[in-house]
Amino acid sequence: MTQNKKQTQEGLTVKKSKDMSEWYTQLVQKAELADYAPVKGFMIIRPNAYAIWEKIQDYFNKILDKMEVRNAYFPLLIPESFFKKEAQHAKGFAPELAYVKNSDTSDEALAIRPTSETIMYDSYSKWVRSHRDLPLKINQWCNVLRWEVKQTKPFMRTREFLWQEGHNVFATEEDAEGDMMNVIQEYKKLLEAQLAIPVLLGRKSRAETFAGAKTTMTIEALMPDGKALQCGTSHNLGQNFAKTFDITFKGEDEKKHAAWQTSWGFSTRLIGAVIMAHGDDQGLVLPPRVAKNQIVIVPILFDKTQDKVLKKSKQIMKTLGKFNPILDDRISYSPGWKFHEWELKGIPIRIELGPRDLDKKQITLVRRDTGKKEIIKEKELAKKISETLEDIQKSLFEKSKKFLDSRIDSAESMRELKSKLSEGKIVKVYMVDSPDVEDKIKEKTGGATSRMVEVSKKEGRCIETGEKTNTIAYFAKSY
Amino acid sequence: MTQNKKQTQEGLTVKKSKDMSEWYTQLVQKAELADYAPVKGFMIIRPNAYAIWEKIQDYFNKILDKMEVRNAYFPLLIPESFFKKEAQHAKGFAPELAYVKNSDTSDEALAIRPTSETIMYDSYSKWVRSHRDLPLKINQWCNVLRWEVKQTKPFMRTREFLWQEGHNVFATEEDAEGDMMNVIQEYKKLLEAQLAIPVLLGRKSRAETFAGAKTTMTIEALMPDGKALQCGTSHNLGQNFAKTFDITFKGEDEKKHAAWQTSWGFSTRLIGAVIMAHGDDQGLVLPPRVAKNQIVIVPILFDKTQDKVLKKSKQIMKTLGKFNPILDDRISYSPGWKFHEWELKGIPIRIELGPRDLDKKQITLVRRDTGKKEIIKEKELAKKISETLEDIQKSLFEKSKKFLDSRIDSAESMRELKSKLSEGKIVKVYMVDSPDVEDKIKEKTGGATSRMVEVSKKEGRCIETGEKTNTIAYFAKSY
Repeated sequence: MTQNKKQTQEGLTVKKSKDMSEWYTQLVQKAELADYAPVKGFMIIRPNAYAIWEKIQDYFNKILDKMEVRNAYFPLLIPESFFKKEAQHAKGFAPELAYVKNSDTSDEALAIRPTSETIMYDSYSKWVRSHRDLPLKINQWCNVLRWEVKQTKPFMRTREFLWQEGHNVFATEEDAEGDMMNVIQEYKKLLEAQLAIPVLLGRKSRAETFAGAKTTMTIEALMPDGKALQCGTSHNLGQNFAKTFDITFKGEDEKKHAAWQTSWGFSTRLIGAVIMAHGDDQGLVLPPRVAKNQIVIVPILFDKTQDKVLKKSKQIMKTLGKFNPILDDRISYSPGWKFHEWELKGIPIRIELGPRDLDKKQITLVRRDTGKKEIIKEKELAKKISETLEDIQKSLFEKSKKFLDSRIDSAESMRELKSKLSEGKIVKVYMVDSPDVEDKIKEKTGGATSRMVEVSKKEGRCIETGEKTNTIAYFAKSY
Repeated sequence: MTQNKKQTQEGLTVKKSKDMSEWYTQLVQKAELADYAPVKGFMIIRPNAYAIWEKIQDYFNKILDKMEVRNAYFPLLIPESFFKKEAQHAKGFAPELAYVKNSDTSDEALAIRPTSETIMYDSYSKWVRSHRDLPLKINQWCNVLRWEVKQTKPFMRTREFLWQEGHNVFATEEDAEGDMMNVIQEYKKLLEAQLAIPVLLGRKSRAETFAGAKTTMTIEALMPDGKALQCGTSHNLGQNFAKTFDITFKGEDEKKHAAWQTSWGFSTRLIGAVIMAHGDDQGLVLPPRVAKNQIVIVPILFDKTQDKVLKKSKQIMKTLGKFNPILDDRISYSPGWKFHEWELKGIPIRIELGPRDLDKKQITLVRRDTGKKEIIKEKELAKKISETLEDIQKSLFEKSKKFLDSRIDSAESMRELKSKLSEGKIVKVYMVDSPDVEDKIKEKTGGATSRMVEVSKKEGRCIETGEKTNTIAYFAKSY
């Protein structure tokens, strides 16, 4: 090998198990996933991370098509008065709004959208006239801005983020309820089958229900540090907004009715979930289904055999086209440097090809998730890669599933709850489903929140009030 | 047919040739392409129009891939001081900036991005260190905001719009120049081959060059009302921004160099171009390559034969899956109503299928662009549709090309220029390429601007100053 080749790659200097927060910060920077913006609380989504988002979008756009939801785009700026129309919604979002100064069009302030219910439903009230206009199903992919006071963390919590927000209108309550449930199931599939992240699916407590909604369904993942992460929510809005924004239709009975609505969304936070759930001490580990490039080919180049090896590499590159391989043929970096770089960046499979492999018509295949090396006969390569990618996808999920299952527990007293929370668990407790009660538990546990609730067949005593209840709440520390 | 079916569809009440402005306004509303927003100067992009944008995105993302440009996302808000760094850029954008009030993070105002050069190049200065880091090629699809003072028009000119902005960095001037030219050629292909809109390609005059750029290349279309429309621009930024934002790299010569840059973009204005260029008195006419649904199937339903006809329609629907057909099987609307609706919405081909067609194993095919009906043997359907779509795409382009060619003229005096501009022409005149001179011509012609300039082999006299020059400017009224 020639001199001057870059030999060492600056990897992660902290172990995930030692300090996950610092590990995450380093990984996000070093794998070029995000960078800090000049304005506090904002982030730059770099191409390596944006590619994950595009994979998610491609997948979910197909689901939207299947659900007959159509994409559209509504304005960034919303008149302040719109937020004030629905009381709960107004209360929920008021602290997070950012306003634009130079509105020359009206005396009223214009807020940058934190979510688009109000501006969309203003239009819906014009578009919906008859039962023939229903269902109306619209989604938008856009940026939203919430002027958070908490500390920000790339992907997990930033003032601006990207998301999809779906807003459907129906003629009946059943349709709206069904839609809310259908969407949350689709979210679960997205997380589990695409991102390889197992989730709990359930209803939000009254305290955690979306501002203005009747019911909120959620999917919750558990990160390796024992903090829960809300990964998507789906709301049955009932007729709250329809009544406020006058979304009414003439039914087949020729009478006027208020419509029933749902809204639902997930955000670029899912990128953070992928990083945290699967990453290891070497860097990012991408589930194959959200990896834009599923393979990297690293030819082992020596002066004498370089041409032959490169030629073969390019040939393999073509054969494996459907996996969108990267051919790393840079001559100014050593193979070792390249191995580390692509491990850091999480490419699911690395193929090594040297002059001796050529003679033997074989190829070295290395799995990113386990680091396991395998020598493959060239003619079996495409088949072996398909199988290995499937296996990586499956084992990432299973590993996370095992972890999640091992961390679900229950408690019968505040002391037990606190103790189990400190072990990074999701803890089931009986709780009277009231914001006041929940606030007290939150305070006593130092910030744990109920991620979801379920109705139990058996009654138990609320760990805060001692009252009998059949509501079980899942408490955890969370992002 | 049953009673109560909707029989009449409210179509356009004005002819395109009579009053194109009113025609456009009606079409945009009635074909559900856009709606007005509650905030002045903003628009809602409805699903029928957003689907055109998605087709453009799908196509252009493949081009970006081929050019090895990667998508990313930068923050919406930009510190005011960033704009002030590059003097020309600052001057160009200052009047159009909207500021956010509640910045608690700094004393300085935060502007909503009107374009992202400054915030992206701040990051680029950190990311580019060595010649090994070049080229750096990043694009983003996002919303931008320009607080325009001119009257707004959906898609054509609004305060907020969607666009792509590409920002590439190179080690040499030649690379940057080549990239600028390559991109503008790709834009031309997008317009001509996908949107069926012929364009002129050329360099912008000094007055019209992008704020901060060395050279701007443009593609210009001519709308049927004789106004030119700038459809995309590609800038060679030289080293202006690299020097201001300190984007430097260590070359192979181990010395520090300022980088060379390009930026380029097109916007949702292209949707407006499609509407204006091809629409007719019946409504929108979509070029097949940007039609999400290339076919609509309208079964002719009578009580007795309804089941049979519907069954056959569904079967055809499956056969024609690759054209993404709509099956309009609503029973509460008459066929006539449906014909008008889908004409209004611009679906390239309509298929009619009645009980008699079933017996004869035939189908009626109607072209949106010409209205021509044809009876097709069922077994020839898929082939015939492919051919017809190709033919529609081709004839839309040719019709527009003939129009454009017929409207390019030249003038040798101010009087002649004005007279030919009033005929809705693009007029070539000799002009000294200076902002002062161009301003005077603009004033004297009542607002015509130079769309592009070219260097002539022959010299001529500037129509404003009388000086000898070999610059020819293309003047037109414009959007």
